[in-house]
Parts: sequence; structure tokens; C-alpha cells
Amino acid sequence: MKQVGYYNGTIADLNELKVPATDRALYFGDGCYDATTFKNNVAFALEDHLDRFYNSCRLLEIDFPLNRDELKEKLYAVIDANEVDTGILYWQTSRGSGLRNHIFPEDSQPNLLIFTAPYGLVPFDTEYKLISREDTRFLHCNIKTLNLLPNVIASQKANESHCQEVVFHRGDRVTECAHSNILILKDGVLCSPPRDNLILPGITLKHLLQLAKENNIPTSEAPFTMDDLRNADEVIVSSSACLGIRAVELDGQPVGGKDGKTLKILQDAYAKKYNAETVSR
Amino acid sequence: MKQVGYYNGTIADLNELKVPATDRALYFGDGCYDATTFKNNVAFALEDHLDRFYNSCRLLEIDFPLNRDELKEKLYAVIDANEVDTGILYWQTSRGSGLRNHIFPEDSQPNLLIFTAPYGLVPFDTEYKLISREDTRFLHCNIKTLNLLPNVIASQKANESHCQEVVFHRGDRVTECAHSNILILKDGVLCSPPRDNLILPGITLKHLLQLAKENNIPTSEAPFTMDDLRNADEVIVSSSACLGIRAVELDGQPVGGKDGKTLKILQDAYAKKYNAETVSR
Repeated sequence: MKQVGYYNGTIADLNELKVPATDRALYFGDGCYDATTFKNNVAFALEDHLDRFYNSCRLLEIDFPLNRDELKEKLYAVIDANEVDTGILYWQTSRGSGLRNHIFPEDSQPNLLIFTAPYGLVPFDTEYKLISREDTRFLHCNIKTLNLLPNVIASQKANESHCQEVVFHRGDRVTECAHSNILILKDGVLCSPPRDNLILPGITLKHLLQLAKENNIPTSEAPFTMDDLRNADEVIVSSSACLGIRAVELDGQPVGGKDGKTLKILQDAYAKKYNAETVSR
Repeated sequence: MKQVGYYNGTIADLNELKVPATDRALYFGDGCYDATTFKNNVAFALEDHLDRFYNSCRLLEIDFPLNRDELKEKLYAVIDANEVDTGILYWQTSRGSGLRNHIFPEDSQPNLLIFTAPYGLVPFDTEYKLISREDTRFLHCNIKTLNLLPNVIASQKANESHCQEVVFHRGDRVTECAHSNILILKDGVLCSPPRDNLILPGITLKHLLQLAKENNIPTSEAPFTMDDLRNADEVIVSSSACLGIRAVELDGQPVGGKDGKTLKILQDAYAKKYNAETVSR
């Protein structure tokens, strides 16, 4: 099996795996998830992703029944069940199953769905094209929830425009992308939007800020505008599979491309970190 | 079977029904739904609900494959398969199934899930207690989507406060409830918030406005505030199973209760309409 699925104790080919129609994820999106890549069967930055996953559960008041070690064991069982040693690892929990009722179920445990799929890191020399779009999402974007309709539709719009991502903005303020964070380099400073309720606290974003500090690149976490983005020295997209990729176009106009040297320091540092931490379990 | 489920052609006991783990509803909430009550095996106001359902599909760019007659046939097959003649009828579609990818799938058809469950109308003499809560939802509340996490959590908060519903407000402006619309009576006028992107265009809300006009009760569709709500002559909650129910308390303080006569005209008119339209198919 290249794509392995797990649901509440059952492992199967993801395309054959079934879940009950009463899972609250199916009709309310009542749950959260996390995802990372794996290489040599090692899930990258798993502790960071587990931190965020348990925090999402806490914020949604989902009493996830497995502790970290128990969850890790399940995640690695799925990684070990597939035929590939490189890919993406995804897991989600929902609040439970039952007849549709907004109120939390009292007689149901949270469900756990895990899958892996073949997927490679985006090569560091990739150049992204972006479109922009008003951010109409809810005010809980810091939680990695299953309520992703605006992200889906925005991603489709990017794809229809032959672009790889969408930059969301609330009015003029840049927030993030449909499934990535966004940073800029300006005058040698690596700038991120604040990690508030308007953006997901990306693990890759966090690492980029850490790596910048380790490499004497100043950092800033403060709101920036669409104009700041247009005038940035570099525009950088980050996600778990996209460890700091240059964007070269926004809404059909060229952006960035003016501080390749600093960007390369970050990319090289990240490649080194990633490879060092995925040698073996 | 009291609770009958249908998924892509298969009918089963809802509690036994399975769906593929790759249904996009499960991990993106990538779909929409509608629901109505049925009595004597007649789905109430089905044409209104179908109008809204197809509009939700259109707004989400879901190319739902069944036409109205085909969908109605499926819905009534599920109603006819259960053992009860009164209940709730729910159906949802998702954009399709496949490996998790934000971009719309090209090789998958929308999925259809239908179920019925025993459920009665809320009696007209019920009195609701409400709490209020900032409306932190997205800006697509006019679409009946499967992205309902804020609604779920707000409903739970109401329940924990021994209340039946939550009044959402954006700043001071009243929008709707977690799974109902809200209206007020003031100086003999039935007032609804505007049916814009901040609220669901409720079928029951629409009927109440129509019935008001038929009974020479003036109506207004304009924004109103939390203070307007606190000072209203009556506060009225409406949903498909709650055809205009009085609220008597908001955040622990008494509200409404000053124009029972007008409220009763509306309730009586609605009861008459509901009963007349659910005699037989």
C-alpha cells in the first residue's frame, strides 16, 4: 500500500477505508488535524506538530484520549505500514460520532483518522506565482480545524490562475496563504505577520524565524500590508512541504527577487536541519 | 429503522452506514447541506429548501449531478424507508472524494448523504433562554456549509448555561443564532436582520415575514443592535423545527414578553400553513 489509512484501530488502503456516516467531522467539520512530512520513515518535527495538535484540541475542547506516546505509536504504525519511506503524514480527530446535534456528545469518544500519502518536499529552487484574495475566513485561523472551505475555494482560484498559492489579506493587512504562511525579507529583516488568531502558527514559519536568529538575520513579527509585500526584497511561502520557497509574481506583477543571498542562507540552513533530523528513528 | 441513512445509492440504518475516508466533507468540510421537517411523510416546504440547497451548491461551485426531481426521489425514498412518519430530513453533498488536495478534484463526482431522524417541532408555547456571543464566523454565513465549528462550540456554551440558543453579534449588530435565525417585534413591526452574507436566509424566517405581510403586520429588514434586542417587545427564534418561538431571557436578564398578541397571530398562521402543507403527498 502506498496510501495507508487508519481509523479508530483499523489499518487499510486509504482508498478502501470507511468511516461511520455519524462522524461529526463529516457534517460539522467538528475537529482538528495536523500534518508533516516524513523521510527515511522519520516524521519531521513531530514534537512541534504534536504540540500544535494538542493545542488545537484544547482550543476546541476536544478531550483527545491518547497521550503523546500513544499517538506517536499509532502514527508510526501507519508510516511503517506503507511501502514508501518518504511522504506526508496526516492525522485528524473529530469530537466523536452520533446523531447530528450541535451540543457536544456525551456518549462518544473522539475519532482518530491517520493517513500517509506519497509526497515530496517542494524543491528549494521552485518559484511560486501568487494571487491575492480578501480573507473572509473566521477568526479562529490559529486552530488547525477541519473547516477549510474558504481555503479550498481560494486554492482552486489560484490553480485556475496557474498560480501555486493565494495571499489572503484582511483589508490591507496580509495574513497568510490558503495552505501556507507567508513571510517577507526587507532590508535584511525576515518579517512575519504576528502569530495571532488570524494565521496558523506554522511549524515551518517558526523554524524559519529560529534559523534566521541562528544565522544573525534580524526578524520581525508585526502586521505588514499588501504594499509591503509588493515592495519586499523577497516574498517567501512556507508550509510543512514547502520549507521557504520564493514567490516571484503576485497578481501578474513581479515581486521579490532582490535578496537571494539571505534567502539562500535560510534555505540552506533549513535543508541541513531537515536532513539531520530525518536520518533515522 | 427509525434512523435511515443513504449514501451514494446505499440505504442502511444510519448507525451502520459507512462513507469513504476520502470524502472531502470529512477533512475539509467541503460541502453544503439542507434540512427540513416531515409530517405524514411529507417534507415541509421542500421546494424552498431545494432552492436554497441548489443555491448553496452554486455559491460553492459544486456541480451537483441530480436535478430537483431526481433529488426529491432520493429524499422521499429515505423518508419512506423509515418507520416513522414525522421527523427531520437532512441531506448534504460534498465536492467529491479523493486524496486530500485543496484544488477541486477532476475525477470525482459530488457525494450525497441523506438521513432522517425522529424529531418533533418545538411546541409554540416553549420559552427559550438565550446567551449572547461575539460572532467570529466567516463571511459566508449565507451558504449552508458543513463548516460549523463555531456554531457547535457556541451551542455547547448555551447548553452549559442551561439555555437553548446563542445570539451572535458582530460588534453590536445582531446577526443570528447558532442554528436559528432571530427576529424581534417592536411597536408592532416584525424586524429581521438583513438577509446578507452574515446570516443564513432561513426558510422559516422567510415564511414568518410572508405571514406577517398576509396578516397586516408591518415588517422591516434592517440591522438591529443588542440594545434593540434587549428592548424588543418580543424576541423570536426561528428554524426549520422551531417555527417562531418566544425568547424570554438573554444573558440572565428578562427580554420580550410585551406583544404576545402579535406573536400569537404569527404562530397561529404558521401552524395553519404547516398543517395544511403536510397532509399528504
